[in-house]
Amino acid sequence: MNIGILGTGMVGQTIGTKLVELGHPVSLGSRSATNQKAEEWVKKAGSSASHGTFADAAHFGEIVFNCTNGLGALDAMRMAKSDNLAGKTVIDVSNPLDFSHGFPPTLSVCNTDSLGEQIQREFPRAKVVKTLNTVSCQLMVNPSLVPGVHDLFLSGNDQDAKETVRTIVTDWFGWKSVIDLGDISTARGTEQLLPIWIRLMGLWKSPQFNFHIVRAAS
Amino acid sequence: MNIGILGTGMVGQTIGTKLVELGHPVSLGSRSATNQKAEEWVKKAGSSASHGTFADAAHFGEIVFNCTNGLGALDAMRMAKSDNLAGKTVIDVSNPLDFSHGFPPTLSVCNTDSLGEQIQREFPRAKVVKTLNTVSCQLMVNPSLVPGVHDLFLSGNDQDAKETVRTIVTDWFGWKSVIDLGDISTARGTEQLLPIWIRLMGLWKSPQFNFHIVRAAS
Repeated sequence: MNIGILGTGMVGQTIGTKLVELGHPVSLGSRSATNQKAEEWVKKAGSSASHGTFADAAHFGEIVFNCTNGLGALDAMRMAKSDNLAGKTVIDVSNPLDFSHGFPPTLSVCNTDSLGEQIQREFPRAKVVKTLNTVSCQLMVNPSLVPGVHDLFLSGNDQDAKETVRTIVTDWFGWKSVIDLGDISTARGTEQLLPIWIRLMGLWKSPQFNFHIVRAAS
Repeated sequence: MNIGILGTGMVGQTIGTKLVELGHPVSLGSRSATNQKAEEWVKKAGSSASHGTFADAAHFGEIVFNCTNGLGALDAMRMAKSDNLAGKTVIDVSNPLDFSHGFPPTLSVCNTDSLGEQIQREFPRAKVVKTLNTVSCQLMVNPSLVPGVHDLFLSGNDQDAKETVRTIVTDWFGWKSVIDLGDISTARGTEQLLPIWIRLMGLWKSPQFNFHIVRAAS
């Protein structure tokens, strides 16, 4: 399946490499069609990898991942163009982290809104599913890096799109426990996991951990 | 050890009952010295239970639990009086949940500040430790209600106070895994767990679950 990825940073490259390894043609999109990081990634990733502008990648993908920096996500998607996202499952992996005031970062949107909701509101024809934003990029595509049971969360308004994403994260990426939290407004909950996530990473000097929700027998 | 508890709701009563069972004299404090809920609790809880105003309970306690409704926490502590909290470990269990705009509730403070920090700033002579705010009141004093390993978080500026609280939650309440996140500003992280906690409770129709952070072997 053709996949478009918005963003050429570590997250976009890691997901892109995994998808190419799985046999999917991937286009990595960035602000400029001649992005050097994207060119270097294409050379390493192999013949089914390509790159272009945000609009090129979004047009190419039957499914589109948003792996941009959260503060630039809406701008990137505007450059990707609404028509190129219409009717497609858009997997939003980004977090609205603002490091401009130092450490720890704050969230540029939270509590009464979320980046996931902002994206869904601005691109109503896209089927936005928020997921993978609560784990390191290595874990996203290789959850067994952390042993045992731990959870991935889904938020989105379109049930079919969520089922598509569930298949991608389980069958393609290897996730064993996926919790559908509900509509896209539940992205507030997962984006607000970042403040404690960042403190835990600082404490343990490693991003290789994840949340597991342990339940009493019902 | 004499314990003061601010708040006569389910959280205050549940913690108070557990502490009385463990043999500690407990004073439950409320806005009025003739609070009916507190009077009924005292009758059930036994001879080492008492009740009074917020100031009475804070004066009585060598350690003080803040179990008030988060939106009223600062007011309750003002009524408890700074002098009655000075030098004492104050265990802040409250969450700044605002249900006034319906469901889901929002947080009245978050992101760049937390209720834990607000309390510490306004009562600088108290040794505020935020903990227990991420689990149901039943779990607070009986963590084995949820099987297996799951975690409790501590946030606070005073290391000795955090060690006192660690002893209380492990030796008295039975917690097996306690993570010291750092200073009181890390309370932002645990208070911001509430939005996903509330969605999970809605999903599963039960508050008997908890977070466990699963780590890769280092």
